Amino acid sequence: MPLGQRVGDKSDSRYCGVETDFDDDMPQVLSHNLSSGFDFVVATLLDPEYRPSLVKKDNNGSAVLPFAASDLVITPSQWSSHVVGKISSWIDLDSVNDKLRIDSEITLKQEIAWACHLSLQACVLPFPKSASCGNYARCVNQILQGLSNMQLWLRVPLEKSEVMEDDMKDSINPEMFDSWEWWNSFRLLCEHHSQLSVALDILPSLPSISSLGRWFGEPVRAAFLHTKSFLTNARGYPCLSKRHQKLVAGFFDHSVQIILSGTSKHNISPGSLPQTKEADNNAIPRHQLRPYLDYVAYLYQRMDPLPEQDRIEHGYRDFLQSPLQPLMDNLEAQTYETFEKDTVKYTQYQRAVCKALVDRIPDENASTTTVVLMVVGAGRGPLVRASLQAAEETGRKLKVYAVEKNPNAVVTLHSLIKLEGWEKLVTVVSCDMRCWEAPEKADILVSELLGSFGDNELSPECLDGAQRFLKEDGISIPSSYTSFVQPVSTSKLYNDVKSHKDLAHFETAYVVKLHRVARLAPTQAVFTFAHPNYSCESNDRYKKLCFEIPPETGSAMVHGFAGYFDATLYKDVHLGIEPNTATPNMFSWFPIFFPLRTPVTVAPGSPVEVHFWRCHGGAKVWYEWCVTSPSASPIHNSGGRSYWVGL
Amino acid sequence: MPLGQRVGDKSDSRYCGVETDFDDDMPQVLSHNLSSGFDFVVATLLDPEYRPSLVKKDNNGSAVLPFAASDLVITPSQWSSHVVGKISSWIDLDSVNDKLRIDSEITLKQEIAWACHLSLQACVLPFPKSASCGNYARCVNQILQGLSNMQLWLRVPLEKSEVMEDDMKDSINPEMFDSWEWWNSFRLLCEHHSQLSVALDILPSLPSISSLGRWFGEPVRAAFLHTKSFLTNARGYPCLSKRHQKLVAGFFDHSVQIILSGTSKHNISPGSLPQTKEADNNAIPRHQLRPYLDYVAYLYQRMDPLPEQDRIEHGYRDFLQSPLQPLMDNLEAQTYETFEKDTVKYTQYQRAVCKALVDRIPDENASTTTVVLMVVGAGRGPLVRASLQAAEETGRKLKVYAVEKNPNAVVTLHSLIKLEGWEKLVTVVSCDMRCWEAPEKADILVSELLGSFGDNELSPECLDGAQRFLKEDGISIPSSYTSFVQPVSTSKLYNDVKSHKDLAHFETAYVVKLHRVARLAPTQAVFTFAHPNYSCESNDRYKKLCFEIPPETGSAMVHGFAGYFDATLYKDVHLGIEPNTATPNMFSWFPIFFPLRTPVTVAPGSPVEVHFWRCHGGAKVWYEWCVTSPSASPIHNSGGRSYWVGL
Repeated sequence: MPLGQRVGDKSDSRYCGVETDFDDDMPQVLSHNLSSGFDFVVATLLDPEYRPSLVKKDNNGSAVLPFAASDLVITPSQWSSHVVGKISSWIDLDSVNDKLRIDSEITLKQEIAWACHLSLQACVLPFPKSASCGNYARCVNQILQGLSNMQLWLRVPLEKSEVMEDDMKDSINPEMFDSWEWWNSFRLLCEHHSQLSVALDILPSLPSISSLGRWFGEPVRAAFLHTKSFLTNARGYPCLSKRHQKLVAGFFDHSVQIILSGTSKHNISPGSLPQTKEADNNAIPRHQLRPYLDYVAYLYQRMDPLPEQDRIEHGYRDFLQSPLQPLMDNLEAQTYETFEKDTVKYTQYQRAVCKALVDRIPDENASTTTVVLMVVGAGRGPLVRASLQAAEETGRKLKVYAVEKNPNAVVTLHSLIKLEGWEKLVTVVSCDMRCWEAPEKADILVSELLGSFGDNELSPECLDGAQRFLKEDGISIPSSYTSFVQPVSTSKLYNDVKSHKDLAHFETAYVVKLHRVARLAPTQAVFTFAHPNYSCESNDRYKKLCFEIPPETGSAMVHGFAGYFDATLYKDVHLGIEPNTATPNMFSWFPIFFPLRTPVTVAPGSPVEVHFWRCHGGAKVWYEWCVTSPSASPIHNSGGRSYWVGL
Repeated sequence: MPLGQRVGDKSDSRYCGVETDFDDDMPQVLSHNLSSGFDFVVATLLDPEYRPSLVKKDNNGSAVLPFAASDLVITPSQWSSHVVGKISSWIDLDSVNDKLRIDSEITLKQEIAWACHLSLQACVLPFPKSASCGNYARCVNQILQGLSNMQLWLRVPLEKSEVMEDDMKDSINPEMFDSWEWWNSFRLLCEHHSQLSVALDILPSLPSISSLGRWFGEPVRAAFLHTKSFLTNARGYPCLSKRHQKLVAGFFDHSVQIILSGTSKHNISPGSLPQTKEADNNAIPRHQLRPYLDYVAYLYQRMDPLPEQDRIEHGYRDFLQSPLQPLMDNLEAQTYETFEKDTVKYTQYQRAVCKALVDRIPDENASTTTVVLMVVGAGRGPLVRASLQAAEETGRKLKVYAVEKNPNAVVTLHSLIKLEGWEKLVTVVSCDMRCWEAPEKADILVSELLGSFGDNELSPECLDGAQRFLKEDGISIPSSYTSFVQPVSTSKLYNDVKSHKDLAHFETAYVVKLHRVARLAPTQAVFTFAHPNYSCESNDRYKKLCFEIPPETGSAMVHGFAGYFDATLYKDVHLGIEPNTATPNMFSWFPIFFPLRTPVTVAPGSPVEVHFWRCHGGAKVWYEWCVTSPSASPIHNSGGRSYWVGL
């Protein structure tokens, strides 16, 4: 049964598993564990004594593999819902002993074939016996090529030394060995195969936070939580350290299933059990890991419910969207509807207009002077409303022009004005701001043309076109905006981009609610635009950035760059999604993601040098990007061949 | 006029150019240099004083760019045959000074556009002003996307410090700067574009041999030979050091054109000229670089003529061929014809059969005992002939079975036997050796089933199938064979593979006469097969190899692996193409080439770890390969999905 109910959580992390020993009475194994509250078992499928080379050759192929159970003893749905296969842990595909290596290859194939026959959802692959894993990866890769649905979870120790076998310690310096690097090379050999995931082994000691953070960009499906990782609380019950608790909470938040592993280290006498009644009534012996399961359930149940906004956005997590083409396409009513609900954003705009009005018109002139304010890109009117509210709040007189190119939105604008009785205050102009011939000049130009990366919806070009009708000392809201990027690791997004099997998708920037992502270094500013802009300089830009990944992170994989923006609306009133300064509770923008065609592995201490260009030509604007350190990538999106925004 | 006639050399390296200063009298520049014996000029196209930002903005676009000449003053064919454009050397596309950077971008585009208008064959791009060249590469890459035929030759100093500008020395430690690395990142940014090549600058000092060697795997089209690189001989004439001579000879051998550059450093009085007559008769002043040109021509002319074999194979240089499918396809007559001409190979076979016969039959039994020798895969009979000659030479009595699966070759075999009168000695068997039911067992099994990589034409499987009819103490010729590989740099082959734009071509091994290749480390043995083979082991193989590139090479790019074989025919008689032990003057095999999907850049001192597998399944055999150090590549050809040999 699930660990508990958490509002909004529909992820697999509600389910908890348990690792079991080889036992040929599978129905009993299953009923014992499920009745004790576990949702699934991770079970060895094949007798651990089995070695292909020991099977007598002269039995005319009549040998039966010593599997734990025939497929008939459990129903198909039980097999697939409640059993995860565990591949024999003795296998060593990179052994220098050819016999052991070949036995391992044969056994691995036999076990996977059996697991497929049973329609298991996943099999756990044991961690490798040596640092070099070329042959293990090759065999797994070959299996993956022919695998229909089953997932393979590669077991990786989170902290190395403790799970290493003694002979492994001989060949690897545990101080130098970073298990993430081992996983990285395995998955590179297997080309980021989408059915290859990670099952982490959690032991008493944990690596540094930034080192741990890398795993949140990886396809971690499960975590083996060893009983020896538990501490003992004052009442003698198992509990986890604060750091372990935080890690487990992170797992719950990233759809990682907990699997309890090991034997009980806490000898709790029946008398001290809180639910003695149940224990008495039942003849079945209580499961020795039940106190651990109870503790994990307790951790799950005390998680905060997902905030409403998160629940709304849940479906967008790590879902790639193509950025809007706001100049070429007209928004639909539903899109306006969604964005208009972002009250935080319009409150910020109202604050900015208030301050601008007060600066522009001293109190003594408030009743005599009318400020001309133009909303360029008025949509269905939210900025018109915010501006009029600001006028009311500050007691300034306002004349508003609402300029909008989308004729469909203009219909709504007209009816809004009638509805609100704003006929004398607001003039609706159905025109592209870049070609409108204004009857007078504006004191204040208000716009909301920003994209996730600031200038990516061509705010600079639009406002350059509109500033003709701004007075020389007039004010633009926003007055400036800056884009930011940071290198990220996100195998989920990389795989989604790759699944299109073309170049164009690797050279496109996507709007995406980042979730399964490791942010590898603090953000840095990219391009800044200020308005009004009376210089003759073009809106082309070029920026070279150098990121330092904290050395305690260890090696890392850069799959691309997450992009954000921050805008100064007016003076100290800002608006943005840059993580350090993000406006709280604003939901109009998800980050942008610039992928890399070939992910870049970065060694500790090696800087990541990246270049971004904003270019224009013909009737379009585009970005190009590349990495030049630690090694040079191709220039992405050369000449805007794959991705561009139309003027 | 060309430097001279060298039998068999049809390459561009016969032509020599000269670098000229900006001069707006192009017809004069051209006639002066061509009449002095140069084949082409490398000429600055645009006034070096020109800067876009200094052009007055108010001339209504009537400004004319200050080019060296209108296209009309020289005929189109002269422009394209005799002029290589030289892009303004002041440009600095990575300058921190935005104005200079933008001026540079504009000028570069204008000059290339002009060169295209003139249909020039190539333009020389100046070397960069700073170690970072991201923006330079981006602009060049963007230009390359739209370039029809013209080549861009990026100028790269062979030895760094001497051509660096002073302000460049500030930013780069000349000791640390390796110009190859700079080129490598430039071309990675431009994705190995096939129209981007290198023009090397040759100065007095030269780097180490292995460092120089890397350039022979790169698309070097020209070498600027500076006058200051010349020494002075006893008679006061310019000459080159031995190392420079060797380098220039290497260029001649790799289609690299020499371009003389700089001013004369040798003041040779007219009286000392050997051709005073010509000098007297002509009013035109003698070209100041003529003595240098004469010396280069002398170096060219004293090159050895290409050996006949090289001339025959010239057309195959760096030309990728798919390996044969000898079991699935039947060879054509022409293919037999070609291979039968390889007398060296059959001489080796004859020597091996001689030794085996003598070992098998003591002299005293020579007249009484008949040896049964079976040629499996007899083709049109060359091994039958070699075996019979060996019998004659050693005075042994021989009974030969010629087993051949190709019915077309069997026709030839029959007529050969009639023609030679071998009816009593040779029995022709039209059958696949793997299913032939032999009427008796053989003393000696002779075969020539080897491919460039030894076992890649499935000799192991064929001989395993044939050894049923070999006596228990019988001899197989060959008795064993081993494959070898070494990492190579070869941008030509990489680009040829890439041009197919699919995965399959990157996962195929090719037979190729390697020429424009840098061999980065000594070969290492991969797989060995011995015959007869009475063990029950399969013919699957796995080998992990670790190559050390000599540290003095510097960084290097591995585009793939060159493969070879060496076979022991019998005892000390071997046959092979492994470079260190290759059988001289044998031409039946070119090397094999295993490409990498993504070339791997290797830092100095970093080992290259590579894995090769030989696998079988269904009715096919295939190789898989991957690199695991310095970073993991994908497993190539998983499951034989792209390339396999049919059984």
